[in-house]
Amino acid sequence: MVLEPAAEGRQGMIAAYLEGGGVSVRKFQQPKGQVLIRMTTAGICNTDLELKAGYYGFAGIPGHEFVGVVENGPAEWMGKRVVGEINLGCGKCDWCRDAMGRHCPKRTVLGIVKHPGAFAEYLTLPVENLLAVPRSMPDEVAVFTEPVAAACEILEQVRIPKGGEVAVLGDGKLGLLIGQVLLANGIQVHQFGRHAEKLRIVKRRGAVIGGKIPRARFRWVVDATGSAEGLATAVQMCRARGTVIMKSTVHERVGIDMAAVIVPEITLVGSRCGRFGPALRLLQAGKIDVESMIHGDFPLGDAVAGFARAAEKGTLKILLRNR
Amino acid sequence: MVLEPAAEGRQGMIAAYLEGGGVSVRKFQQPKGQVLIRMTTAGICNTDLELKAGYYGFAGIPGHEFVGVVENGPAEWMGKRVVGEINLGCGKCDWCRDAMGRHCPKRTVLGIVKHPGAFAEYLTLPVENLLAVPRSMPDEVAVFTEPVAAACEILEQVRIPKGGEVAVLGDGKLGLLIGQVLLANGIQVHQFGRHAEKLRIVKRRGAVIGGKIPRARFRWVVDATGSAEGLATAVQMCRARGTVIMKSTVHERVGIDMAAVIVPEITLVGSRCGRFGPALRLLQAGKIDVESMIHGDFPLGDAVAGFARAAEKGTLKILLRNR
Repeated sequence: MVLEPAAEGRQGMIAAYLEGGGVSVRKFQQPKGQVLIRMTTAGICNTDLELKAGYYGFAGIPGHEFVGVVENGPAEWMGKRVVGEINLGCGKCDWCRDAMGRHCPKRTVLGIVKHPGAFAEYLTLPVENLLAVPRSMPDEVAVFTEPVAAACEILEQVRIPKGGEVAVLGDGKLGLLIGQVLLANGIQVHQFGRHAEKLRIVKRRGAVIGGKIPRARFRWVVDATGSAEGLATAVQMCRARGTVIMKSTVHERVGIDMAAVIVPEITLVGSRCGRFGPALRLLQAGKIDVESMIHGDFPLGDAVAGFARAAEKGTLKILLRNR
Repeated sequence: MVLEPAAEGRQGMIAAYLEGGGVSVRKFQQPKGQVLIRMTTAGICNTDLELKAGYYGFAGIPGHEFVGVVENGPAEWMGKRVVGEINLGCGKCDWCRDAMGRHCPKRTVLGIVKHPGAFAEYLTLPVENLLAVPRSMPDEVAVFTEPVAAACEILEQVRIPKGGEVAVLGDGKLGLLIGQVLLANGIQVHQFGRHAEKLRIVKRRGAVIGGKIPRARFRWVVDATGSAEGLATAVQMCRARGTVIMKSTVHERVGIDMAAVIVPEITLVGSRCGRFGPALRLLQAGKIDVESMIHGDFPLGDAVAGFARAAEKGTLKILLRNR
């Protein structure tokens, strides 16, 4: 689905638009079909910055972290505040039938693959993708559902017992959410990063802040550095027969020493999007401090400034608002 | 343990010796301590060729695939024909106590790490490492216990149900053993390789011979290509949420596209040595055609020629004999 520019006599909207390495705010027609959602708050993710840089050859409206209000759709959803899972499956394949549309080979992805995103006044999603946001949860919390779900995905893929010791590499947005999600599940977290003020967010929740990188020490290591070197460091920290969870979607070929993985029989687990239900429940229970992670707030019309701020070194979450 | 050259008045032996990229046959003192085994048949493995090329900065007597006869040791082992597990653990750490001495951080490894190897008239091993070879099993079969154990290791690490479809990449020595071990366990094997005459060995046992490399087709893929490109091909063939078993100990940094692993949430499992028990049982049951894999046979004294033959393109197993 590609949106057409606004024309006379049709309902228009503004949206952030990525093309050729730049971001602009433009007028478009409102999207049609499915459930129409008026975005109220959206979050800028590293993926959005990468899309801006031209990965996937992306051109279009980005944005996949959002909260909004249903303006058109089934009666029972009208006026509801919602978040939405970002993968739109075909609905027919084995993956979709198994509630794993996020691996449907024909999927589109909100704001990433062939479906206009949430950095717009309006977006659409199928009703199956929607989850109602609890009344008491502010937009600023609910907008974290998608990245918290990505953190929760680790526990859907890898069984880590309560009390297990996990090293989390990285103190960026995803690293801090992963640390907190693991802590909320009774896991001992050793968080490694370079920014004391960011590490404080997980330290307050009970994480041990790691110092020197140890060798062959942890049974589970999460690489959320977002850097090409993160994987090799994670492998080095992992003990024999241990598991490294790969959360750094680095868009370049990363060199790994295969012997360093094979000799100690380490398992590497690629990990991406997760289900929204467990994430919403954790947020509702107040288990994740997301407020401390918000570093800025821009009106949608100032998305260009929002992207610039999000790209500054050391910035955590930047929100875009539509109200 | 480093063996000293033979000296007047001590019991000597000949052995193959690797140093500075070359192989020679030299005289040494017999090794002492532990159980003394007279090697009768040994096999040259790709690892030996890599050690010759200087990986690990190795200098010493190589060889870790062998059959031999106990000449000195506990009474109940005297004169027995044996094979032996190659990792010598400390016996005290958690790994060793858990019968996983092959991951002991202090381990030495027969013919690989600080323990003189089996390409010698005599070698030593601790009694715990020995397994008696069934009387009816010829040396030419028993000598495959170690590489068959490495193939069996896959099933100790990854649960693959009977009837599951597995792609095995590579038709070298290890690839052919892996294909056969999986077939012997009731698994459907699709073997991919470039040499029809080698592939015939697994085809006779029931493997489907693969043609064009498919995309996202198999839930389990084993990379036994021994090449740096094998891993990327294996990832490409693996379906979302599937598992790639890494059996190619390539001694160079291998470039992988992390997004190609993370987006489909593929798991990569490093896999190395296995336990000898299951391997011996499979060989005893006649489930693995190893005879077709023997491409040559050299006296230990001609180890230089044996190494040269083993390094020729297309060669499968070369044996060294001491009788």
